[in-house]
Parts: sequence; structure tokens; C-alpha cells
Amino acid sequence: MKKVVTLGEIMLRLSTHGFQRFVQSENVDVCYGGGEANVCVSLANYGLEARFVTKVPKHEIGQSAVNALRRFGVDTNFIARGGERLGIYFLESGASQRASKVIYDRAHSAIAEADPSDFDWQQIFKGVDWFHFTGITPALGSKATDITMEACQKAKEMGVTVSVDLNYRKKLWTPEEAENVMSQLMKYVDVCIGNEEDAEKVFGIKAGGTDVESGQIDHAAYEKVANQLIERFGFKYVASTLRESYSASDNGWSAMLCDGNKSYLSRKYDVRIVDRVGGGDSFAGGLIYGLLTEKPLQEALEFAVAASAMKHTVPGDFNLVNLDEVETLVKGDGSGRVQR
Amino acid sequence: MKKVVTLGEIMLRLSTHGFQRFVQSENVDVCYGGGEANVCVSLANYGLEARFVTKVPKHEIGQSAVNALRRFGVDTNFIARGGERLGIYFLESGASQRASKVIYDRAHSAIAEADPSDFDWQQIFKGVDWFHFTGITPALGSKATDITMEACQKAKEMGVTVSVDLNYRKKLWTPEEAENVMSQLMKYVDVCIGNEEDAEKVFGIKAGGTDVESGQIDHAAYEKVANQLIERFGFKYVASTLRESYSASDNGWSAMLCDGNKSYLSRKYDVRIVDRVGGGDSFAGGLIYGLLTEKPLQEALEFAVAASAMKHTVPGDFNLVNLDEVETLVKGDGSGRVQR
Amino acid sequence: MKKVVTLGEIMLRLSTHGFQRFVQSENVDVCYGGGEANVCVSLANYGLEARFVTKVPKHEIGQSAVNALRRFGVDTNFIARGGERLGIYFLESGASQRASKVIYDRAHSAIAEADPSDFDWQQIFKGVDWFHFTGITPALGSKATDITMEACQKAKEMGVTVSVDLNYRKKLWTPEEAENVMSQLMKYVDVCIGNEEDAEKVFGIKAGGTDVESGQIDHAAYEKVANQLIERFGFKYVASTLRESYSASDNGWSAMLCDGNKSYLSRKYDVRIVDRVGGGDSFAGGLIYGLLTEKPLQEALEFAVAASAMKHTVPGDFNLVNLDEVETLVKGDGSGRVQR
Amino acid sequence: MKKVVTLGEIMLRLSTHGFQRFVQSENVDVCYGGGEANVCVSLANYGLEARFVTKVPKHEIGQSAVNALRRFGVDTNFIARGGERLGIYFLESGASQRASKVIYDRAHSAIAEADPSDFDWQQIFKGVDWFHFTGITPALGSKATDITMEACQKAKEMGVTVSVDLNYRKKLWTPEEAENVMSQLMKYVDVCIGNEEDAEKVFGIKAGGTDVESGQIDHAAYEKVANQLIERFGFKYVASTLRESYSASDNGWSAMLCDGNKSYLSRKYDVRIVDRVGGGDSFAGGLIYGLLTEKPLQEALEFAVAASAMKHTVPGDFNLVNLDEVETLVKGDGSGRVQR
Amino acid sequence: MKKVVTLGEIMLRLSTHGFQRFVQSENVDVCYGGGEANVCVSLANYGLEARFVTKVPKHEIGQSAVNALRRFGVDTNFIARGGERLGIYFLESGASQRASKVIYDRAHSAIAEADPSDFDWQQIFKGVDWFHFTGITPALGSKATDITMEACQKAKEMGVTVSVDLNYRKKLWTPEEAENVMSQLMKYVDVCIGNEEDAEKVFGIKAGGTDVESGQIDHAAYEKVANQLIERFGFKYVASTLRESYSASDNGWSAMLCDGNKSYLSRKYDVRIVDRVGGGDSFAGGLIYGLLTEKPLQEALEFAVAASAMKHTVPGDFNLVNLDEVETLVKGDGSGRVQR
Amino acid sequence: MKKVVTLGEIMLRLSTHGFQRFVQSENVDVCYGGGEANVCVSLANYGLEARFVTKVPKHEIGQSAVNALRRFGVDTNFIARGGERLGIYFLESGASQRASKVIYDRAHSAIAEADPSDFDWQQIFKGVDWFHFTGITPALGSKATDITMEACQKAKEMGVTVSVDLNYRKKLWTPEEAENVMSQLMKYVDVCIGNEEDAEKVFGIKAGGTDVESGQIDHAAYEKVANQLIERFGFKYVASTLRESYSASDNGWSAMLCDGNKSYLSRKYDVRIVDRVGGGDSFAGGLIYGLLTEKPLQEALEFAVAASAMKHTVPGDFNLVNLDEVETLVKGDGSGRVQR
Repeated sequence: MKKVVTLGEIMLRLSTHGFQRFVQSENVDVCYGGGEANVCVSLANYGLEARFVTKVPKHEIGQSAVNALRRFGVDTNFIARGGERLGIYFLESGASQRASKVIYDRAHSAIAEADPSDFDWQQIFKGVDWFHFTGITPALGSKATDITMEACQKAKEMGVTVSVDLNYRKKLWTPEEAENVMSQLMKYVDVCIGNEEDAEKVFGIKAGGTDVESGQIDHAAYEKVANQLIERFGFKYVASTLRESYSASDNGWSAMLCDGNKSYLSRKYDVRIVDRVGGGDSFAGGLIYGLLTEKPLQEALEFAVAASAMKHTVPGDFNLVNLDEVETLVKGDGSGRVQR
Repeated sequence: MKKVVTLGEIMLRLSTHGFQRFVQSENVDVCYGGGEANVCVSLANYGLEARFVTKVPKHEIGQSAVNALRRFGVDTNFIARGGERLGIYFLESGASQRASKVIYDRAHSAIAEADPSDFDWQQIFKGVDWFHFTGITPALGSKATDITMEACQKAKEMGVTVSVDLNYRKKLWTPEEAENVMSQLMKYVDVCIGNEEDAEKVFGIKAGGTDVESGQIDHAAYEKVANQLIERFGFKYVASTLRESYSASDNGWSAMLCDGNKSYLSRKYDVRIVDRVGGGDSFAGGLIYGLLTEKPLQEALEFAVAASAMKHTVPGDFNLVNLDEVETLVKGDGSGRVQR
Repeated sequence: MKKVVTLGEIMLRLSTHGFQRFVQSENVDVCYGGGEANVCVSLANYGLEARFVTKVPKHEIGQSAVNALRRFGVDTNFIARGGERLGIYFLESGASQRASKVIYDRAHSAIAEADPSDFDWQQIFKGVDWFHFTGITPALGSKATDITMEACQKAKEMGVTVSVDLNYRKKLWTPEEAENVMSQLMKYVDVCIGNEEDAEKVFGIKAGGTDVESGQIDHAAYEKVANQLIERFGFKYVASTLRESYSASDNGWSAMLCDGNKSYLSRKYDVRIVDRVGGGDSFAGGLIYGLLTEKPLQEALEFAVAASAMKHTVPGDFNLVNLDEVETLVKGDGSGRVQR
Repeated sequence: MKKVVTLGEIMLRLSTHGFQRFVQSENVDVCYGGGEANVCVSLANYGLEARFVTKVPKHEIGQSAVNALRRFGVDTNFIARGGERLGIYFLESGASQRASKVIYDRAHSAIAEADPSDFDWQQIFKGVDWFHFTGITPALGSKATDITMEACQKAKEMGVTVSVDLNYRKKLWTPEEAENVMSQLMKYVDVCIGNEEDAEKVFGIKAGGTDVESGQIDHAAYEKVANQLIERFGFKYVASTLRESYSASDNGWSAMLCDGNKSYLSRKYDVRIVDRVGGGDSFAGGLIYGLLTEKPLQEALEFAVAASAMKHTVPGDFNLVNLDEVETLVKGDGSGRVQR
Repeated sequence: MKKVVTLGEIMLRLSTHGFQRFVQSENVDVCYGGGEANVCVSLANYGLEARFVTKVPKHEIGQSAVNALRRFGVDTNFIARGGERLGIYFLESGASQRASKVIYDRAHSAIAEADPSDFDWQQIFKGVDWFHFTGITPALGSKATDITMEACQKAKEMGVTVSVDLNYRKKLWTPEEAENVMSQLMKYVDVCIGNEEDAEKVFGIKAGGTDVESGQIDHAAYEKVANQLIERFGFKYVASTLRESYSASDNGWSAMLCDGNKSYLSRKYDVRIVDRVGGGDSFAGGLIYGLLTEKPLQEALEFAVAASAMKHTVPGDFNLVNLDEVETLVKGDGSGRVQR
Repeated sequence: MKKVVTLGEIMLRLSTHGFQRFVQSENVDVCYGGGEANVCVSLANYGLEARFVTKVPKHEIGQSAVNALRRFGVDTNFIARGGERLGIYFLESGASQRASKVIYDRAHSAIAEADPSDFDWQQIFKGVDWFHFTGITPALGSKATDITMEACQKAKEMGVTVSVDLNYRKKLWTPEEAENVMSQLMKYVDVCIGNEEDAEKVFGIKAGGTDVESGQIDHAAYEKVANQLIERFGFKYVASTLRESYSASDNGWSAMLCDGNKSYLSRKYDVRIVDRVGGGDSFAGGLIYGLLTEKPLQEALEFAVAASAMKHTVPGDFNLVNLDEVETLVKGDGSGRVQR
């Protein structure tokens, strides 16, 4: 069985019920998630050995985050314990013209203040095939940057394929800081996932054409961006989801994959949104699965986009769908007839 | 007041909240339902005297199933008590590209293992106008087949109109078993409800044309199927719902009725789905009501399809709508304006 | 800061969960609301000083209504205490072809039986810029009519701008009673909000053209109605929301404003409905805000219609959106992308 | 099977969750109950034919009250439909030193404003063995008094045993009004249930000795009261529960029965309270069952007090315990060991 | 009406349902609280003008904390806005031998990092009679110490009575740090609330005798401590609650008050615990009320201890009881009989 | 780290909320549990490597049972997949004089119909120190008996210590069947846990003295039983919990341990019950932990009884307490003071 490692933050997520606004909510749902943890759970759900690396405090909230991962079969043996707090994010689900809202309360988290000595990458990467991280992790602070760097170097050294999801977060760092750090990390990366906005914000690469709010998508423009990324960093593949935000309730969802020679465009799904948080992560999880299991590129892409279309219907950060379900959708049964 | 009897299984239904998946659910909604019970509740809601015949265990879960029926005015005096367990089904509601999922745990239920001696059909049918059953009941096992057969014979003997909803369930029997049993039962039947899939699976009648997953409907093809059914079994009417599954969230919903001479096609509703389980049963309930109260055929059909369109908006198996509400929709007010 | 007063009833609202029907609900959500209270909360949310005037019983249910208003910053110092009961309304949320249903249990409420001596309008209107009421308040009974009349007179006398939302409620009075009372009140009114149905029912003004159930809207017809209202009562502005009820789940939502010379038509929003109760009130709240802060008329109208489009996504009677959120939507970002 | 009729009001009960206070509750549990309805459900649970007579509005809230009774097997065929509203009561559950609190909102209910012509007692009492009412029903208003009087007269005339639970409610009438009406009704009564407080408030009978708040009980004093009641009205039996209120969480619970010659004192239960509303009604239900099935007096009393001790552990107004459960407790198994 | 100001932190409280442990909870109740906010709400509930001073972030979680206070009538006009986050605490309710557990996540909160310039004490104390703070506030950090110092000085200068609840929190500072800061603050204090543990930890005052865990209380020992406190700091009154922890479910609850000459010992309540968080704060609230309204000392003490006994039955941090309820309990009605 | 294996059934548990009865519950809590699974989770919580062996169906309900174990760190790698269904039990929590009630629906479960070939004991016991089973597993059917027998033999052969909890369940087999099977299994057992009732029902060993319902306990009598068990089967230790059922809400809880020479009696806890299901299993888990970590016998016993006293406060089957918490209680802090 293929083995995958992801590194990042797992946060406590507190979300209002139904479509309640923060200011009227007296009761919130508890779950745990974060970009890299979400990818890890997806891969465990597809049957791979998936290991998540982070640091959580020793108290019960930290333990609950670990338990949330163990519940879905993720290997949590290399999670460090200690630090002050678990990062938190508050989520209010939007509808129609009202956008969903996220309030972050993640500063000073255990992983943001972890030390490189908390992780023994030689041990962590033993027998591992793939390593995935996102642009969020190095953005957490200089120690987190160091940890990510060390992980990438050791992965490369040990022959582990490396993927990144650029995931630029403006509340964590400036474009300048991002470019400085991410440029160094990119030399270890084989597969890069990132949309036009990420490419522009992090690397100043801009091809024009897509107006996020208009919902119009210019595939050619994205292809140009992808090719510039490949040229600059030597990636094997560059991929991106293509979200058309009709409203907070309905989105168009498709994706592209470029290998420098050719671009692959997926089928587009019109999704009725239950919970869109983690949509991009589920795409990354699907793509890693497709590439690791050596599906042809178009198939790998279709797997990833079908998996992530389904994520939009699952509450919580994690994409709780299995291999059969994704493959059924890839084959075209999106009719939603009751499965008895 | 017209009196109706239905025979079948009532199950404990355990459904996840919101759009939660089974593997993340820590709390489930409890209700009770089953094809024939659902029809019975619809008829009680329209003001008919509706009697449900089944067998449930003597414990509180069995009693709760009886209570669920009594609550909506169903006569439960002929429900036998005993046996090991109540059948259970687990329901996970889908959305968009993710289908709803049903896990059955119905083997060894009290009704599946009931004995013909548990039911005194002479008493049960006294003063009764209509008897309805579905293809699920005889599929529960050989004793259940015997019970159904006896009920049908006695109904015919006592001049009670008989209707069936073919409802082929592949987890309960093979097409061969189904054809063998159902062919014998059909000779007692006056009104047959069944879609193309049922007709093909149970009686090998196939007219081609409708591709369930494509969402395209070929009315002429269905008409051919209906006419073959009428020819073969001498039914007075054959009817079917016509579901177009755009996704797990949105369906097109209409129906046809054939009397051997003419076909009636209903108005089509685009329904935003809250709970589609019991949609077909609510159509049967509406049609029986329409025919029993001697509405013209087109009106009976429109009543049935409007009633069942509304069912898609009601949580639970039962169609908790009354006569006025259905008739208002038949008259064309589907605008959804607040009723104050 | 501008100061606004609204006068009316605040009711206890008991609403079923999810899409449950009344007859299956074992647990209801509690909130408080009512046309004029809803307007008041909107204005407090936009940062104005908003005072609500009513009467509530001395017990804890009455106090809870007061608390609900205080929570969102409404000034409740002039709410009288006493009387027998708080009016109640039960709400069942519809979906698709099934309309939402309201059962009123509001007779004999504290405000309906309040005495003019309960309110000292000289004090209440001190330093106040705007007074708003609706056609519901005088319809509650003859004492309530007297109170409304006194409030209007005193407002006019003290130079307070007066607005009304006609809000004809057929369960409270007949068209004749309404016309008799409302005609007298209209002479104090500067800004009148009312749709064609209100205008016809209350004042017998009919321009034809809009068939509420068809969902077709005839702007010219509404303009005629507005102009007749202006002519007859000398209003400065007449405005109306224009709801297109596609179904209980989806509506088109726009509005018009006329000043006697010119008509302004807003952008139209297609809204996926979470809770449409209070939609009209949130329009009134938005319009009062726009006019009070002296926005140009088209902008005031766009503000009001955007605010009320958002209300349709917020559970409860109150429109819990703030200034920034409405203005972002006015500027055109209805894409519903997650706000991080 | 013995047949029993009870007459009275069934109310919508809205109770806060856990131990929440009214002013902090955003969600309430819904159930239906009332003194006489509670007795009726108890008797249906013991297997008798129990018919409840009242009037409820035609809307869904009224229907839900009917459904709540049907669910537990009560015959609701003689419930009149019409009137304005269902009476409501709000319940906040206390604990320890904080008492439970009830806010009534029952004025103008359908039964309070029902007309004697709504009920055909000749039909209602056909084949009936026992009729039960409480002092609450005639206290609802003069029409309700007339209805109760007519029911009592007809019951007596038709040889139906009559029982009353005095249940003095100071918010409904004064002691003078109560005495005037109740004295006339008592001549039809065979079995009277009432505690010292009732006897004193309604009939001015006072024997001294029991200080309700001290929790001390003087059995001799109560015996004197009972004997005076028997002497004055010729009752066959007089009974009373004896509650010792240690706190809102813990009570002592026993009862006495007097037949004019002898007094019977029951075992005392120390109950940990889940929901004490309906405790007295469940005693009445148990006593009627015991007397109707001709248990020896001590046994009838023990049955009643055991049944009502159990009620204190059941949420809601109704005593959802069956014959076996009560009899097991009577036999002495109050150990609370898990029943597997 | 008397005016009171309290200064401190208001935190977001997230508590598990029922008796769930943190590691099994998927849903938490949301409320807001903190020592000084709790005192402020108590005083508002008794009808005083109560103003709370703190700093909260500008986002919706901060606003919700403000709303929670406004809901119960607290004046929030002097709450500063800004900073990074609201302090959080997680609460798991214990039972029997399992203690309740609190996990604090309060570092870096807006109030802990507030600046003295955020508060204009001259304005805040205008017309104010009483100022209350606790030992938690200065423990939040050096700026918070400065703010507290400034508030105390200005209060004294403006003739405002000052009270403190020592409330030593070992996770916030060491005994040395505490003594250093608190000793300086004590010179402004008139009324000091603190138990033996506080006195020992903060000021090294130890009289021996009470073994907290044994549940035995030595009143004489406490009296000695109180007198030493009075001697050292010149307090007018020193008071303390006396908790006997039988288990997490049951406590004995009483209190003492010393004025240097005499000691007053309250009645003791055996409380069945619903939520003991905020028990001490509700005592402080009751005592301040009693002293401000010039009750005799024994009465003031009885009021405070009755109020705080009741708090143990109310979910959440706030003591949602009113004047009448506390006074009824003071008069001796703790029987918990239903209030109808 | 010590390794433990337990073998048995894991069931889906469906429990009513609060103290609701089955017949009024519309919503149930979902968890998973069973005697041997509960022991396994306890041991994982104490930090041991704990492996659970069973068979579950391939569907999501089966997977959820596995996930529930993984969540708390149990090794689920040797759980077989297949079979028809997961056993279910319904739980209604009692209070005061009303006992909790369990309805089993466990027949035909995957483990009851598993085949010995489903389990490779050589692999399962590799490096394992302790094997635990209960009398429930062999009672599930003849194949389950065979599986248990094979496991015991292989454990003995591989030097694994074997413990049993007799756990006689009268719904699964007769005393004769039990004695026949259990006698054979006992020869592999080192440590036997069983109360007097088990000993009498399974092995006909009766010493008289304890009347379960009276709540009186005769330690000498139990000692005699233990010694007879040791004599007959050569157990190293025999232990039993000693439950005094005061009511469904309050129990006395202690335990005894005999080694043939001496009897050890634990401290007794008076427990306020939150959830007593799994109380005995948590004792077994604590005892195994104590013995495996070579605590002196009295200490091992105190650990076990403290752990299981705490279980009574935790909702669900699993004892979610950790080592520190149990040891704190053993040391005597049962005061229930808040842990901050």
C-alpha cells in the first residue's frame, strides 16, 4: 500500500448551526480540520496509509484533534505534543447572496510555535512515497518555515515525491514574505496545485482573464499561468480547481491539469453546496491519489474533481467519501438516485 | 366514509441529521415507515378510514411503530403482536451529486416471520372498499407470500378493489422469484402501479426508451409497457411516476395513468428535495384516494402527483399533507407564498 | 447619530426545525419578532439609535422579548409593562411547492389591549428624527388605533418624519375597517411602503397587471398605483418590494420607489430562501436608513433591496446584517465566496 | 374492557431544555397535557378504553393535541373542533432551591369558550363505566361550568361512577366562586381526590397540622379533612397525595385513602425528580384504575402511589408507564437495576 | 438607582452537553462570562444600573460577548473595541466523583493586551456608586495591572466604593507576583471577598483549620484570616463563601462576613449542582447589592448566599435570578414547589 | 508497553435523550459498545496497546463501529469484515424508582455468525500479554463458542494470561448451556470476574446472603463463592463488583478480590449515576490494568473500583477516563472541585 505524509496545522472548527449567523448562535458544532489534515483523511479514506504530522497541546482539546484523525484511520504516531493552544476557526455558513464567513483565532498555536526538533523526518519518511504540504504551514511563522524546509529537503533526499498547494492566505503573510519563502521551497516540489490568484499573489505571475467574481473562467489564461509556473520551478504537473461562484449556495466546479506539454480540462459539476470548506483540499487529495496510483492524467484529474465535487455535500472539513463513491461519480452517475 | 386496508411492513427508520454521512453521525432521528404504512397514513390524512395490517414485536420499539400510526389516525386494531424484531433501515440524505443511501437491516422481522394464522382476513376486510399491497411484502419470505396471497384471495372474494405497487427490491428476491410470485398475485389486482424498471425486472416487459440516469423520459415507451401489463393481467388501470433525477437535490416529478384505451399525463413539478423517501408511496396514496372518490382519471392523476410532489418537502416517510393542501396545489398554487 | 422610533407588536415566534410540519414537531425554535420590531433591529444594526415602543406582560416571556431587542442594541426604555399575554405566532417553513405556514395566536396581547396612557409620546419623540409604524398596529383594536393616531399626531407636531408599511392583514380587519382607519393616519405619513395588494385592499387602488401567483411583474402597473397613492395622500415617496414567488424555496426579489416624478427600479436578486419572514420589514429598515442618511434615491433603494435580499438567508425575524455587508452586496459582490 | 371518560382542557406545553431559565432559552420542547388528559392517557396505558372530551381549534396546533392523545391510544372521536386557540403553558424546570415555574397563557381557549351544545353526553357516556373531571374545568368560565354540570348530571343518570380531583387553581377563580360551583357538582361525585389545601380553599374545611413548606405531614389532620368531606358530600372515597417538598430536586411521595370508616396510608417513595408536572394526575389515574378493577383499597392506593412515583421520572405531562412496570414497583422492586 | 461599574475580562465559554467529556463532544453550548461580567449581570438583574468595562475584538465573536451583556441590561457603552482575540474557556461538567474541568485558552486576549488609554475613567465613573474588580484582571498582564490600578485610583478619588474578589488563579501568576500587585491595589479597596486559599496564596495569611477537600469547615479559622486582612489593609468588610464539596454533584454552601468587630455566618444550603461556575461571582453580586442598598449585615449576607445558592441551579456563567426570587429564598421557601 | 487483546461483540447502541422513555423518543444518541470492546477502550485510555477482535459487516454502520474504536486508539487491524448486520441495543435511561431498560436486537450479528477461519490467533496473539473475554461471546452461538475456545487454547499455548468476566445473560442461553460451555473454557482462565449471581447461574455455586434488591451486601458470603470458584477451576484471582442499588439514580459501588488466601475489600463510593452501562466492564479494565502493571492487590482493586465509579458519570459504554484521573480519585480526591 502506498504511504503518504502531510504536514500542517489541525484546527478546532466551531461552526454555527443551519444558516445561523455568529451573533445569534448559542450552540456550535465541533469538528477538526485544516488543509493538510483534510488531504490526509481523504487519502486514508481511499485506502492509503496516511500519516499526519503536526503538534498539538497536551490537553483534551489537543487529544480530540488527534482522535478525529485516528477515527478515520490516519496514522497519528508522529504528532508532537506540547505548546499552548490549538488554533481555532469559527465558521458561519452563508447562503444565496450572503457569503460564508471565517474568523481565525489561530495565532500562538502549538504547531506555529513548534520547534524543528519536535520532528524526526528520517523516521517520519521511512517507506513513504509522497509528501504534501501547503503554503499555509510555512506562513505560520519562522519556525514553521524552518520545519517545512527541513521536511522538504529530507523528502527530496529520501526520494519522496513532493506536492504543494500554494493556498495563499493574506492574513498570515504579505505577498513579499510569501514569495521569499515559497520560492525556496518550490525547488523540492514535483506537483504544484494553485489557482491564478495564488500564482499572482505568491509569485507575481499573472495572465489575466479570470474575474473571480464574475464567475467567468478563461481556460487559456490559466494554462499560461501553469506553464509559467512549470518553466520557473520545473514542476512536473501544475493543477488548479476552477470555481465559478454563482452564489454561496451554488457553484460550478471543475479543474485543469497541465504537464508542460498538454492541458487537461475536467468535466464541470454544478454543485448545490452543503459545506464548501475543504473543497480545494479534497481536490488535492484526489489528485495525489490519482497520480500515486498511476491513473492516466485525464482520469486522475476527473477523479480529483469528482471527489471534490462530492466534498461540497459533506458537513465538516473532511471529505468523507470512499473510492467506490468517487468512481461511481466519475463514471457519470450524478443522478442522485437513492442507493438502496 | 370509504375504508381502506393496507398490508405490509413498518420499519424503524434511523436517519442522520442535516446532510451528515453515516460515519460522522452521533445522533439520529427516529421515525417509522414502510411502503404500505406510508400509503395508509396518506389515506388517513385525506380523511378515509385506513387500517394497517402487519406484525410487530411486543416490546416498546414495536409499540412505538404502532403509536406512530395511531398518531395520524390509522386503525391499528388488526396489527398482530409477537416475533423477534422490527425491521430497521438507516438513511443518509444525499445532496447534489451525492446520492442518499439506505442500509437495510430488515431480515428476521416480525412480519417477515409472521404466520398466516396471525391475521383474520374475514374480520379485517369487513366493510372495506379497497386493499393495497406492494411487491415488498411477498418478497419478505414464503410465509409473507402466503399471507399476501390469502389477503388477495379474500379481498377478491369479498368484493374489495385491489391495488399493488410492484416495487421490485433486488435485495429481497431475484427477478425469477419475483415473477413467479407476483404473476400469481396479479390476477387479484385491479390497479397496478409500477414503473418501467419494475415491469422489466418482475415481468420481463421492456419497451426501451427511458434511461433512468439520463433523466430523459419517453412517454410513448412507458405507454407500451402499461398496455402490455393491462393485456397480460387484465388490470383496470396501470400508473407510474416519472422521476427525472437531475441530482440528489432536484428532481422532475410527474406521472402517467393508462386505462388500456387512453393515457393520461400529469403536470410536471420541479421539486427541491427535502426527503424523497416515500415519494412513490404518496403517489399511490393519492391515486387510491382519487379513484376511490371517483374523480375523473386526469384529476385523480393530478391529485396523486401533486400529493407526491409535496411529499418530497416533508421529512420522514409519511406524507403529512391534508386534502386542502393537495387540492390547492392541483389548482395551481405552487408559488410557495406564506400562508398566514 | 440619527434617532428612530418604531411602534408595534413584538411576538413570540415558535418555529419548527428544518422543514418539519407542525404535526410532527416535538421541539420548536424560540425567537421574537414583529414588523415594527424587525425594522427597529435593522436600524440598530446599521448604527442608528433605534427605540422600540410596545407593551409586554410583566412575566419572563415578556422580559425575554425585551431582552431579544436589547441584545441587538435597541433602546427598550419606553416599553410599557403589563397586560395579559404576549402575542404568539407559529411558523412552519415550507419548501418547493409547499408554502410556509403561519398560525397566529395574537388576540388579547398586551399591546392590543394597551391604553394610550401607557405611552408618553412627548418623551418618546424627544430628539427623534423618524417614526415608523405599519398597518398591523392600528388593526390590533380600537385602543391600538388610538395609540397609533396619537403617536402620528405627536410625531408630526414635533417635526418627526413618518413612514408606514401598509401591511394589510386580512385576519385582523376588513378592507372597510382598514380604509377607514388608515385614511386618517395617512395624512401624517411622509413615506409609504406598500405593494399593489395592500393598495387595493386598503384603499381600493387597483392598476391591474400583476398576478402575484404567476410571478410576472408589471412595473408600469405598480407605478400607476404609486402615483395614485401620492396624489391621494401627498406622500413624498412610495415604495414597494416586488416579489416573484417561483416556489417556497426560490424567489426573485427587487423593488421600486416613486417620488411622484420618477420611478426607480432596483436590481433583481434571485434568492435561495432560508427564512423569508421579515423580508419586507428588512426592506423598510433599509429604505429608512437610506433616506435618513440622505443617499440619492436610486442608492437608497438599492441599499434597501440588497439588505432585504440578505434577510432571506438569515433565520429568525430580525435582519442580522450590518452596514458593511449590505454595502458590499450593493457594490455587486453576490458571489458568495468565503470571507476569511 | 372498562371504559372511562374524562373531560377537560388539553394545553400546548412549551418547556425549556435542561435546567435553562425562560430568559435564556432559545428552543423549547413541545408536548401536550392537562389534568384530565393526563388521567386519560394513564388509563389508556393500563389497557382501558379511555375517551377524552374537550374542544380544540381546527388548525394544526389543535390537531397536534389530538394526535398526542391518539398516539397513546386515547379515543378522540368526541373532541369538538373550533374556537380560537389552544391554551398554552410555559414550563421552566427548577432544581435544588430553585422552584419550577409555570406561566399560564390559557385564557380564551377553545374549551374555555366551548358551548354545551358541542357535546352529546348521551353518546359520549354510552357503555361507559367511569367519568372523571377536575376542579380546573368548571373554573375555566361559566360555559365550562355548564358543560361540566351537564356531564355530571348525565353521568349520574346513566349510572356512571364519577370522580373529581379538586385541583384548586387560584389564578382561575376565587375560593368563593369555587365553593359555589364545586358544591353543586359534588353531589354527583363518588370519589373525591383533593389535598388539605384544596379542601380548605374550596370548601373552607381546615384541620390544621400540615405545613406544606416544612415538609412535615400530619396524617391524622388529613384524615379529619377527609372525613369532613365524606360527611358533607357523601363521597364513597376521599384520597390525597402527600408530597413532602425537600427541594425542587427531591420529594417524598405517599398518599392516603379514606372510606369514612378507615384510613389507608401508602408506602412512601423518595423520588429524584425528572418532571413532577402531572404527578397528581397520575395518582388519580392509578386510583381510578385500582378502583375500577376492584383491587382491595390498600392495593388500589399502593398502585396509585407507585404509578405516580414513577411519573416523576418521565418527561412530559403524561405518565408513560404500563401495568407491568407499576406492579413491579408495587411488589417492591424500586432498586432501579437495569432491565435487560 | 444605584450605579455600579465592574472591570474585567469576558470570555467565550464553550461547554459540553449533559455530562459529556471533552473527547466525546461534537457540539458545544456557547455562552459568555467571566468573574466581573458575572457580577455585573447579577446587579443588572437586581435592577441597578450596571456598567461593564473591558475590551473585545471588533469581529462578531467580540460583538456577541457585548450582546450577551446587553441582553440582560448591562451598559456596554464603555467597552473598547480592538485587539486580536476574545479569551476562551472550555468547560466539561463533572458529576459525582468526577470533577468539572476547565481548559483556559485566554492568553493574548483583547483585554489582556489593552492599553490604559482605551479607558476614560473620569467618564466611566461619572455618577457611579460602586466599583468592583477581581484578582484575575491585574493578573492578565502588566498593562492590565496598570489599567486596574488607574481604575482603583480614580474610583477612590471620585468617592466610589471599591470591592475586590481576590480570586487567585495559579495559571496566571505566582503568589509572589500576586502579592506584589494586589498589595498595592488593596489600599483602594473597601470590601474584600476572598476565601482562605486566596488569603494564603496572595497574602501569605494562613490560619489553618479548613481542609478544602475534606469538606470540613472551621469558622473560627476563617474569622482569624478575615481579621488579619482587615488589620493589614483596613477593609471595611471581609467576606467569603464556604463551600463544602461533597462531590461534583452536591455541595454545602454558606458564607461568612466580618466587619472587624463581629462575624456573621449565613444559613447553609445543600445544593444539587446544575452549573457551579460563577457561584462565587453571584455571591459577590449579591453582597454588593445588599451593601449598596444598605441592608443590615446579616441580611446582606443572607441575600448574597441565597442568590449564589440559586446560581448553582442555572446553566451558564450568569446568575439569571431576580430580586423577588432571591428574597423568597431568603425568607425560607426552598421547598421547590412549582410556582404557578 | 503491555499488549492486550479482547474478543467479543461490538454493538450499535441507540439511547434516548435525557430521561425520555422509548415510546416518546424521536431522536436517539448513537454510540458503539459491548463488554469486551469497553474493556479494550479502557486499556487503550490507560496507555496500553489494546487490540479488539470481532467481525463487523462491510457497510458504513460496521465501519462506524470500527471508527469508534480507532478514535480512542484501539488497534482494529484484526477485525474481520462481512456478515449481515451489527447487533443493536436500545437503551432507555431510568431514574429514581424507574429502572433503565435495555432492548436487545442482536441476533444474526456478524460476530454471532462468524467462522473460526475469520481469525488467525497466531497472528493476533503475537507479542501479546493478556487476553480477555466474557461469557457473552460464547453465548452468541456455537460458532462463537468455537471461536472463543480456539482463542483460549491458543492464548494458553502462547503464554498469554487469560481473564474472563462471567457475565451471564439469560436471554442468550440457559444455565445448563452456560455451565456446559463455560466449564470447558474456565480451564484456560487465570483471572475470573463474576458476581454471586453469575456464579450461581453459570456454575450452580451459591453461598446465600446477598439479596440483590435489598441492597445489603454480605462480604463473607461472596468470599465463600470466590473460594469455591478458585477451588473448582484453579483461578489465580477471583473478583467481583459489589453494587448496592439504592435506586436507578444512586448506587453504592465497591468490589472484592480474592486470591484463595486472602480477600481484599475496596473503598465504597456512593455514585450519582449518569450512565451505568459498562460499569462492570470498566472494573474489568481497571483490574486488568492493575494486575498487568503489577500493582499490589489492594491497589489494583482500588484502581479498578475508582475507575469504574468514574464510569458511572460518563455517557456511553466506554470509560473515557485516563490514568491521572483514576489515580487522583484513588488518592482520595472525590470532592469534585473544578479542575482549572
